[in-house]
Amino acid sequence: MVSNRVKKIIEEYDPSKVTIATLCSHSSMQIFHGARKEGLRSLGIAVDRDTKFYDAFPLARPDEFIRVKDYAEIEDLADELVSRNAIIVPHGSFVEYMGADRFGNFDVPSFGNREVLKWESDRSTQRRWLTSAGIKMPQEIRDAKDIDRPVLVKYSGAKGGRGAFIAKDYMEFKMAIDYTQQHTIQEYVLGTRYYFHYFYSPLRTNGFKLRSGGILEMLSIDRRDESNIDELYKLGSTEELKRLGFFPTFVVTGNVPIVIRESLLPKVFEMGDATVEKSKELFGGLVGPFALETIVTDQLDIKVFEISTRIVAGTNPFVNGSPYSDMIESGLSTGRRIAQEVKLGFQLGRIEEVVS
Amino acid sequence: MVSNRVKKIIEEYDPSKVTIATLCSHSSMQIFHGARKEGLRSLGIAVDRDTKFYDAFPLARPDEFIRVKDYAEIEDLADELVSRNAIIVPHGSFVEYMGADRFGNFDVPSFGNREVLKWESDRSTQRRWLTSAGIKMPQEIRDAKDIDRPVLVKYSGAKGGRGAFIAKDYMEFKMAIDYTQQHTIQEYVLGTRYYFHYFYSPLRTNGFKLRSGGILEMLSIDRRDESNIDELYKLGSTEELKRLGFFPTFVVTGNVPIVIRESLLPKVFEMGDATVEKSKELFGGLVGPFALETIVTDQLDIKVFEISTRIVAGTNPFVNGSPYSDMIESGLSTGRRIAQEVKLGFQLGRIEEVVS
Amino acid sequence: MVSNRVKKIIEEYDPSKVTIATLCSHSSMQIFHGARKEGLRSLGIAVDRDTKFYDAFPLARPDEFIRVKDYAEIEDLADELVSRNAIIVPHGSFVEYMGADRFGNFDVPSFGNREVLKWESDRSTQRRWLTSAGIKMPQEIRDAKDIDRPVLVKYSGAKGGRGAFIAKDYMEFKMAIDYTQQHTIQEYVLGTRYYFHYFYSPLRTNGFKLRSGGILEMLSIDRRDESNIDELYKLGSTEELKRLGFFPTFVVTGNVPIVIRESLLPKVFEMGDATVEKSKELFGGLVGPFALETIVTDQLDIKVFEISTRIVAGTNPFVNGSPYSDMIESGLSTGRRIAQEVKLGFQLGRIEEVVS
Repeated sequence: MVSNRVKKIIEEYDPSKVTIATLCSHSSMQIFHGARKEGLRSLGIAVDRDTKFYDAFPLARPDEFIRVKDYAEIEDLADELVSRNAIIVPHGSFVEYMGADRFGNFDVPSFGNREVLKWESDRSTQRRWLTSAGIKMPQEIRDAKDIDRPVLVKYSGAKGGRGAFIAKDYMEFKMAIDYTQQHTIQEYVLGTRYYFHYFYSPLRTNGFKLRSGGILEMLSIDRRDESNIDELYKLGSTEELKRLGFFPTFVVTGNVPIVIRESLLPKVFEMGDATVEKSKELFGGLVGPFALETIVTDQLDIKVFEISTRIVAGTNPFVNGSPYSDMIESGLSTGRRIAQEVKLGFQLGRIEEVVS
Repeated sequence: MVSNRVKKIIEEYDPSKVTIATLCSHSSMQIFHGARKEGLRSLGIAVDRDTKFYDAFPLARPDEFIRVKDYAEIEDLADELVSRNAIIVPHGSFVEYMGADRFGNFDVPSFGNREVLKWESDRSTQRRWLTSAGIKMPQEIRDAKDIDRPVLVKYSGAKGGRGAFIAKDYMEFKMAIDYTQQHTIQEYVLGTRYYFHYFYSPLRTNGFKLRSGGILEMLSIDRRDESNIDELYKLGSTEELKRLGFFPTFVVTGNVPIVIRESLLPKVFEMGDATVEKSKELFGGLVGPFALETIVTDQLDIKVFEISTRIVAGTNPFVNGSPYSDMIESGLSTGRRIAQEVKLGFQLGRIEEVVS
Repeated sequence: MVSNRVKKIIEEYDPSKVTIATLCSHSSMQIFHGARKEGLRSLGIAVDRDTKFYDAFPLARPDEFIRVKDYAEIEDLADELVSRNAIIVPHGSFVEYMGADRFGNFDVPSFGNREVLKWESDRSTQRRWLTSAGIKMPQEIRDAKDIDRPVLVKYSGAKGGRGAFIAKDYMEFKMAIDYTQQHTIQEYVLGTRYYFHYFYSPLRTNGFKLRSGGILEMLSIDRRDESNIDELYKLGSTEELKRLGFFPTFVVTGNVPIVIRESLLPKVFEMGDATVEKSKELFGGLVGPFALETIVTDQLDIKVFEISTRIVAGTNPFVNGSPYSDMIESGLSTGRRIAQEVKLGFQLGRIEEVVS
């Protein structure tokens, strides 16, 4: 998993001076807060961004900022970061803004396996990975003419949830579709949404063991809060609103804490387990935090509509622990868990198994 | 309350070896976690079930599992459980799966009063209990021809929320009803739902005292998350969806933490108080955790649509305390509170008042 | 800010006997709980009200109650309160029930600046304050004939959320409006709601500093739970329900904890900063807790529809800390923060800067 270049770099690191670094956004406060709780240094990369608000949260303010004007400049920080014994924690915004290619070639040790990028970035490889692991996903509809039920249509490359729409039938699809854009069509699954925040540790041995080694944790669950779809109904029915020119959008604005019924947990762990095992087969394995984003139907089926292969912002309600992580260790966040894994990697002399 | 057989059994128990036992499901992790926090042993009864996920939560994993193939086999475990000084905590799934009759005759000390089963299991006795205690409930409509407002229709014995429907008027009722099934009709109360998690302690004396002795606590509040009704609106209005053949269902998939406006708390305690006092009159009293499941109207009336007479899964968001329980003792869950009451029962030599 | 009369009174206070006092309602448990955690005495003013429920929460029960029959009688308690070295914490219900005029002239030290009342109580001065601070608000529509989009219409003096309605266009407005009542019309902003709980401290120096001195904190975020609008959709579309005579209402019944996406925090602090700075210009400054009540659109614009200039009930889910306050100090509630500021005021000999 780890490249020779990164392996060489991290072998030179002074374990007593390791610094957790990430981009100032997304879940950075949680990541810095977790590093501090574990006694590690922290560093925020601020790209043309107001960082004053960190002053309001002394326990989550990084020890140091590095400021650049443009995401493209992050590349140039490699030496500076390495000189600080930095390990990058690549949250969703980090990779999106830096660019997957540039991130892939960035010569700074990064928590987790970068190989996952190739599999996550494309809907079709993502689907191949998950379905070959036995995970149930909403059915894909290749030819719009086969639409025989409500569907969710997503334009490719659409960011932030404004590039999707729901169609209840083929007629609605035809009226709404913009054929000039690439899109995917999948069945619209009725149910309630649960976003599971897993953590795969190749280093720990006590816990939910995987056949191939390492343990799987589930640290918390959230539900995304989406504007405007979540509160649109207050104004009127979707049918009526369409007539008035208002359309649902799916822009994530926040997160709500939630728990799932306990009887579904075996299935939740089965899914996480299969996802990690298959990742080892396909690309050397997913390491650290990942999330499965799901819908639970009234038949108690769990359908996964997306995977995030790094820390998700949905972990932010749980800075000081969740109803799940508190059954592992009181006050444990995903950010803190990352810092623990980094420390353990150095302690065991196996840091190269958790960075790339 | 306690039968002579159970009384005899528990008199032989070694207080230093008491074991909290429950069925592996529902709220079992919280129950085991609470037992551990209070220094009690714990035991999980696993019926044909994958228990590996408990490995992922070391603080909630029971000290021991007993595995059987079928719910009917639980009966045969009585001696084994008694030999371990076990006290059963009968959560909702426990009673449902074992069967109320078998559970009633199960010769293992069980936390709380089993007499409550007769009153809880049937909608009409439940209604008699609550309304005679002065609790407001949604109006029942005996004859469908009297439907003059929106109603909720529930089929008898329907499990898990797929056996209910909403009708806005008599016409809709007639179109939807399956006359071959027994059903009840009640007015559909408009408002927001709050599920109050109470705990009645006959042993403690400091707190909200009841006239007849003991104290009443309120440990947390949740809202149930129901598939598909909660997110159905995103696809379209209920009217439009019916035309397309999609109907709302009410299957509980999880729970969300919530608080109620403080000015309603006097009413909330009045309701809990009246419920316990009436239970003493009717069947020797409700002991330990129970929940009132309510709707708060825009007139700030609280209507109770159901009572659960044991720990509910809605307490699961509060494994490490709730905004309410934290004002009693920091980090207090209902599971932990049960363990405390068991310990106190032995300490005071009054354990037979909290088991049956 | 502080009047000479109040200044004189508080100069006589014995810092070792300071008592946090408030009306028994709204967020009083949190306020008493916070006082206790900070080692201050607490006192509840109970107006014709059942206070027994406090017995159920020993850590939130005030050390003492003073009981009166009528809100008008609170005025007469001034000497008694002063003799106890009391500092009033005026939550929303306190001011509403006592009456803004009577509260304005009440000669007991009150946490925060009472001057804010003149600016908060009236929608038009509130709007002047906020918009002149650069805060975005939903557009106001002066003449109903200019309604060209969905609007929210609020009757003046309407309490508790039953005095408002949504109209999708001018026609709906005309059908619903009661011209005999004064009303305001504003555009209906589509999006998700976030209620930010700020705290401005003129005394602390470490943190998010304001240009004019003091620091700004953001302790938590909630979403209000409103009956019946929140669950109305389950019965049918708003259009269908109107035909049946059911109308949405907006009565607050509780609060749900929530977090916002981290990338919006700079804007959130900018808004809080501008609100405080402008308040200093206009009336000597807002002190202590206040809340901005907002809608986040799918363009990630934040529109403020209201300001509350004292502790809001939305802080009640966070009695034992929030995902935000835990990054300042573990277990910090707004109630506790108030107690800290009072203590600091006495320690620094600057108590007159935080009371009025």
